[in-house]
Amino acid sequence: MDHRENLCLLTDLYQLTMAQSYFESGKFEPATFSLFIRSYPPHRGYFLAAGLEDVLNFLRDFAFDQESVDYLRSTQIFADAFLDFLSGLRFTGEVWAIPEGRLFFKDEPILEITAPIVEAQIVETFVINQIHLQTLIATKAARCVHAAQGRAVVDFSLRRTHGIDAGMKVARSSFLAGFSATSNVLAGRRHGIPIVGTMAHSFVSSFEREIDAFLSFARSFPDNSTLLIDTYDPLAGARKAVEVACELARSGHHLRAVRIDSGDLVRLGREVRRILDDAGLQEVKIIGSGGLDEYDLAAFSEANAPYDSYGVGTQMGVSGDAPWSDIAYKLVEYNGRPVLKLSTGKVSLPGRKQIFRFVDSQGRLQKDTITLREENLAGAEPLLKKVMEEGKAIGPYPTLKEIRERCAQGLSCLDEKIKAIRDPQTYPVELSPRLRGLQEEIEQQVVQSQ
Amino acid sequence: MDHRENLCLLTDLYQLTMAQSYFESGKFEPATFSLFIRSYPPHRGYFLAAGLEDVLNFLRDFAFDQESVDYLRSTQIFADAFLDFLSGLRFTGEVWAIPEGRLFFKDEPILEITAPIVEAQIVETFVINQIHLQTLIATKAARCVHAAQGRAVVDFSLRRTHGIDAGMKVARSSFLAGFSATSNVLAGRRHGIPIVGTMAHSFVSSFEREIDAFLSFARSFPDNSTLLIDTYDPLAGARKAVEVACELARSGHHLRAVRIDSGDLVRLGREVRRILDDAGLQEVKIIGSGGLDEYDLAAFSEANAPYDSYGVGTQMGVSGDAPWSDIAYKLVEYNGRPVLKLSTGKVSLPGRKQIFRFVDSQGRLQKDTITLREENLAGAEPLLKKVMEEGKAIGPYPTLKEIRERCAQGLSCLDEKIKAIRDPQTYPVELSPRLRGLQEEIEQQVVQSQ
Repeated sequence: MDHRENLCLLTDLYQLTMAQSYFESGKFEPATFSLFIRSYPPHRGYFLAAGLEDVLNFLRDFAFDQESVDYLRSTQIFADAFLDFLSGLRFTGEVWAIPEGRLFFKDEPILEITAPIVEAQIVETFVINQIHLQTLIATKAARCVHAAQGRAVVDFSLRRTHGIDAGMKVARSSFLAGFSATSNVLAGRRHGIPIVGTMAHSFVSSFEREIDAFLSFARSFPDNSTLLIDTYDPLAGARKAVEVACELARSGHHLRAVRIDSGDLVRLGREVRRILDDAGLQEVKIIGSGGLDEYDLAAFSEANAPYDSYGVGTQMGVSGDAPWSDIAYKLVEYNGRPVLKLSTGKVSLPGRKQIFRFVDSQGRLQKDTITLREENLAGAEPLLKKVMEEGKAIGPYPTLKEIRERCAQGLSCLDEKIKAIRDPQTYPVELSPRLRGLQEEIEQQVVQSQ
Repeated sequence: MDHRENLCLLTDLYQLTMAQSYFESGKFEPATFSLFIRSYPPHRGYFLAAGLEDVLNFLRDFAFDQESVDYLRSTQIFADAFLDFLSGLRFTGEVWAIPEGRLFFKDEPILEITAPIVEAQIVETFVINQIHLQTLIATKAARCVHAAQGRAVVDFSLRRTHGIDAGMKVARSSFLAGFSATSNVLAGRRHGIPIVGTMAHSFVSSFEREIDAFLSFARSFPDNSTLLIDTYDPLAGARKAVEVACELARSGHHLRAVRIDSGDLVRLGREVRRILDDAGLQEVKIIGSGGLDEYDLAAFSEANAPYDSYGVGTQMGVSGDAPWSDIAYKLVEYNGRPVLKLSTGKVSLPGRKQIFRFVDSQGRLQKDTITLREENLAGAEPLLKKVMEEGKAIGPYPTLKEIRERCAQGLSCLDEKIKAIRDPQTYPVELSPRLRGLQEEIEQQVVQSQ
């Protein structure tokens, strides 16, 4: 697995070769890099910020241990003087960032790092890797929560997330976006997220008769059993669940829920609800699962399917319809000189920036304006906060619960048309006249100077 | 980050609740679970096995440490007797698996685990997580290598892989599938994969003039420079690269390559090649990159675009067009009784199995037959090998280089129509008459007994 002491090498080789060239050219001036997403993935109208805590921890602990330097030496790519320099390198810069759980939009800087150029450059790979994944998943998860229209949604994705780190980050990112719980026990332990679980088809098949599997499980968890009823036939399974519920009731316990994991979930949900209700089991809940995504949940909400909660796995855990976003970390200022990149379709905004958010009297989001850092727009909230100074995080991190509440609050203030599951409207994001003027000026300068 | 001692909790809660129920029901008989992929993702005609080494290490080290048990106790979900049992639990079973780097096809068991049912069940989440990711990526990477038609392909994906573990596993999986190198330095250190790197646009923008960036880099790496020429204008960039190459030549060095990362890569590649060739720089290579996938590479090969190698990032690293596969880990035998699941669209093959591969006199793959484990088909190779017995791995693991060679060998023997990048033909996979008979028999028994 991944050991903290090695993460300095979890980077692209070019970060290190560029660093040597900066070092040998005597380039140690401060640089500002800006992290932003260039475009919305399909059907997305907003993003949710996530991953900052991991980035700040990484920057705080950033250092090349001796074994890593020895490995670099063994590659024969690097000069000894540079490797000595690397041994003493720490991150000493400052970070401005949108706090986790806040909404943001395309082209807006999620974070800006200012540090001597070697430091600001060399951390790029990790910074992108973590913010990309967590923002992508938090956004997908928020869409699922919105589509479920008040029904609880829980994270069942661990088996199909892309590896271990993703499994942990998906649990956290989906919880902060409004998921109620996770099946991932380690995430429960590490982050205090409520953990939930039902049973697998294999549990049922390991008994010769389905009813014996149900009874065995109910005896082990008499007040906390969710029976998976679709191993053979979901309606027959539901009738057996009724038998179990009656047996539990005789000893003063109750069946918590049944789960349906395959088939036509709308139709099956209704029929199973009727079987339960006819037996007087109105309090037994129904959980739906099986390859669900926000499009399914929206359809179930539309059909008013009688589910109390949903288990959402793969499609959320890998952001199935949009497994990546066009995130970029670009140099925007070097040694006081604003810079940008002109590559086809990849233009960036020069200079250190700020984002101002305008809301109406009820707190509803109206528009954002991206400005230069030193601008101040009256009546609007600056979104980028200074979160690290001289390599040290400023103040304690917010708790996951606080982030989750901030997120729910923000989403409740976003127009339904921007939150639409399909074909959302575009939220208005403007550039301030000064930023636009600088962009035009630098573009002309760049074209002329090359 | 993730610490090995905690991985016992990297599981779905239901694995633990089912385990308690098995424990309390006195169910300790051996169970066999089978891991397989139910269907091909779009445009896939084969899969490449990867991830077994991580699974075997996990099973070898499987144990609940005291802190993990304490956490489970704090949830108040579990009985004390069960938690004591969990403290002493180790994996004591046997594993049969397709070795890493071998080709396999849908419905074929990638691995089968036989162990007391608690042990075989409880490891499910990790086993799926690792084999799913690594098989998915190895398969995607093999498609890129095939599409590149002999040009080198290197892994540039680390910034957009889903987290740290994925970054490491993608580097390994793509290398075993035929990639030449990775930008991921830690993967280079851990797995001995060749590491490569060029420069970023930010490096170029940090200098006032592009040519100064190129000269600075070339001075640091006089025999190992790849210049990124599209920060402003790729053709102007190519002409500056010629200047740098001439300056290097005067001191007995040479420019290695240029990289184009945006725009119409086919047209730009040709024009840049002409600029280099006109300057007598036939030996300077051209690297293409920028959101490439196997469909792009196939188009470039078709157009005979003059690239020497490609950097492939996001699309391979997240398997962009198919970020998940329908992989499942199903109980197929319990206490000597073959079992299966009948849920809609999710039927599994009962019993312990083997796969036999038939090849022609040139070694070309003809067909596979899935059989019961004890069957033996003359003239065909059994694909599932016993790789773990009584919780101990059998023999040393193959080296990554051996796996990579095995993979190249296998792919060279697979029909072009099965390897097609779009709309591949279906490779023939049959069930033996005995397996088919057993499946029908168990289906009938199951239906009758419920």
